[in-house]
Amino acid sequence: MPRSPKPAKPSARALLPTAERALIQQISSLSATTRSSALRLGIGDDCAILRVRAGEEIVVTTDFSLEGRHFRRAWHPAAAIGHRALARGLSDIAAMGARPLAAFLSLALPPAAVANQSWLDAFFHGLLTLAAAHNVPLAGGDTAQAPGPHILADIILLGAAPTGRALRRSTARPGDILYTTGSLGGASAELALLAANPRRFRAANPAANHPHLYPQPRLAQGRELLRRHLATACIDLSDGLSTDLTHLCTASHVAAEVVAAALPLHPLAAALPAAAALNAALNGGEDYELLFTAAPTTRLPRKLAGIPITPIGRILPTRKGRPQVTLIDATNHRTPLEPQGWEHFRTP
Amino acid sequence: MPRSPKPAKPSARALLPTAERALIQQISSLSATTRSSALRLGIGDDCAILRVRAGEEIVVTTDFSLEGRHFRRAWHPAAAIGHRALARGLSDIAAMGARPLAAFLSLALPPAAVANQSWLDAFFHGLLTLAAAHNVPLAGGDTAQAPGPHILADIILLGAAPTGRALRRSTARPGDILYTTGSLGGASAELALLAANPRRFRAANPAANHPHLYPQPRLAQGRELLRRHLATACIDLSDGLSTDLTHLCTASHVAAEVVAAALPLHPLAAALPAAAALNAALNGGEDYELLFTAAPTTRLPRKLAGIPITPIGRILPTRKGRPQVTLIDATNHRTPLEPQGWEHFRTP
Repeated sequence: MPRSPKPAKPSARALLPTAERALIQQISSLSATTRSSALRLGIGDDCAILRVRAGEEIVVTTDFSLEGRHFRRAWHPAAAIGHRALARGLSDIAAMGARPLAAFLSLALPPAAVANQSWLDAFFHGLLTLAAAHNVPLAGGDTAQAPGPHILADIILLGAAPTGRALRRSTARPGDILYTTGSLGGASAELALLAANPRRFRAANPAANHPHLYPQPRLAQGRELLRRHLATACIDLSDGLSTDLTHLCTASHVAAEVVAAALPLHPLAAALPAAAALNAALNGGEDYELLFTAAPTTRLPRKLAGIPITPIGRILPTRKGRPQVTLIDATNHRTPLEPQGWEHFRTP
Repeated sequence: MPRSPKPAKPSARALLPTAERALIQQISSLSATTRSSALRLGIGDDCAILRVRAGEEIVVTTDFSLEGRHFRRAWHPAAAIGHRALARGLSDIAAMGARPLAAFLSLALPPAAVANQSWLDAFFHGLLTLAAAHNVPLAGGDTAQAPGPHILADIILLGAAPTGRALRRSTARPGDILYTTGSLGGASAELALLAANPRRFRAANPAANHPHLYPQPRLAQGRELLRRHLATACIDLSDGLSTDLTHLCTASHVAAEVVAAALPLHPLAAALPAAAALNAALNGGEDYELLFTAAPTTRLPRKLAGIPITPIGRILPTRKGRPQVTLIDATNHRTPLEPQGWEHFRTP
């Protein structure tokens, strides 16, 4: 049976069927640029068909990218919106130590956005460039007319991991050392620059270091952690260290302490006043690094797949009167660290 | 490692974190009511984990259910909105002849909807009742605050089929007989009744025959078609017979003819004037029956898993000057049948 992309499935559920059909055909032809042995049938039938290897299980995540909540067209280049939508899902796959199999995109557009071909081209270019970098085919999805003025995207990622070995957030143990990949606070520091001057990054180069606009999901690092049995637990830093570490502690039934002076600040965060820099690293969110734990006897390399690894604290048993997460500041003072990851677009 | 549902993942990306957390915990506890051997890890980690059997491949589909496009809160009972959202995805799984593995729900709610607990309870009751009927766990998803006043849902379904044997729309052959399961036109006929009196079905019984409000995805029928090697091609009737048969013909590079007098009309459609009844059956859409083809030498049973099977036409080779789809009316007159499946909520 033919396995090339089928003629697009035009939906009758569209105000602009011709434009939507053109959109689907564009997606279909663009998505054909990334080949994958896992994908047996892509866009064009009722379902896509995927195959995994013997001894693998499947991991699945879905992530909304909603205009006004997760991005603003006035602030974000279209390519960055596409990149970020996919990066959110890929980062969840990375946190499981899995290899990505395929992405699916449900995309609802207001009529004016359907007609804006250059915006759509840039959106898909951003999304598919990141997809190609990780060899992830865009294998299907849905399109619709948005009921309001906002662009609505939902990204679905499927990945595969050796059966029973996917990394989890629920398996950290007291005594484990807490690590992060890369650096922290860069995404929120860059977002602050963007908010101050929304046109600043119109021509940003996706290949340059843009932690907010073009975050790099740590897929190779997650797979290394799994393959080399280095991590006892793992979560991605999407909501902010204070919030995501709380998630990890809750799921693992443990407490943790974090050493402020040990936090690897992104240069954009390091350029801020000290309190703002610490806040960006702890609560900024969207750094899409991996936060993981390892047994104290495990020797971690300095880098994983080219990205530095930094110990930032340790896992403790829960104890009555002990905060779930404790911050140790530069003067060795201990304070409870509450989850304060925040919503960037609270009042769009 | 524990496999019971993990503590919910509260997202910091919410205007109403407490309400959202409560919502996620509600979903998590509700979704735990359906057990499945395929689901190894449900809501609560970065990804869900699924396992398929040896010799199976995975099928995936995503379907938006957007307020104002696919449903109206003023018209549809909340339970029907939840049921219909899941039914759309399950019908795609049925069309592949697959068994459903798990469902994922991305759900964005405006603040007033988050606060409307009775609406949410009914929505999830409708969705999870259908899920339980087909033994499909709700395994994860995403939640967000909607950027506008509309409820936004995206349903993702994963299924499994024997490797290489999933039914496709692209494999019909000239000479094949065209069949449909069940009856046609009921969904659009019931929608017309709903439009005329939006309060009419407030207390509709989901177990009764409500083709628009509570469509029944033909999962058992699709699996029978696959298991018994009965079908050469299959598609689900979501957009309407005229549109979906055109999709099947385009994908299979064939033409088709449909005999109007052979169409099995749903009683609600049969009660309409003849022209309106025919229009409902051909173009109404959302009947969620299976449209499939079988070799002329294949003996089809009268029923599949309790649902009648009706021959309604045949597949022809494409030929210059021949319409892609031809309708043969009661006087044996032939006319081209254009895809006219329509959008119910064109002007919400």
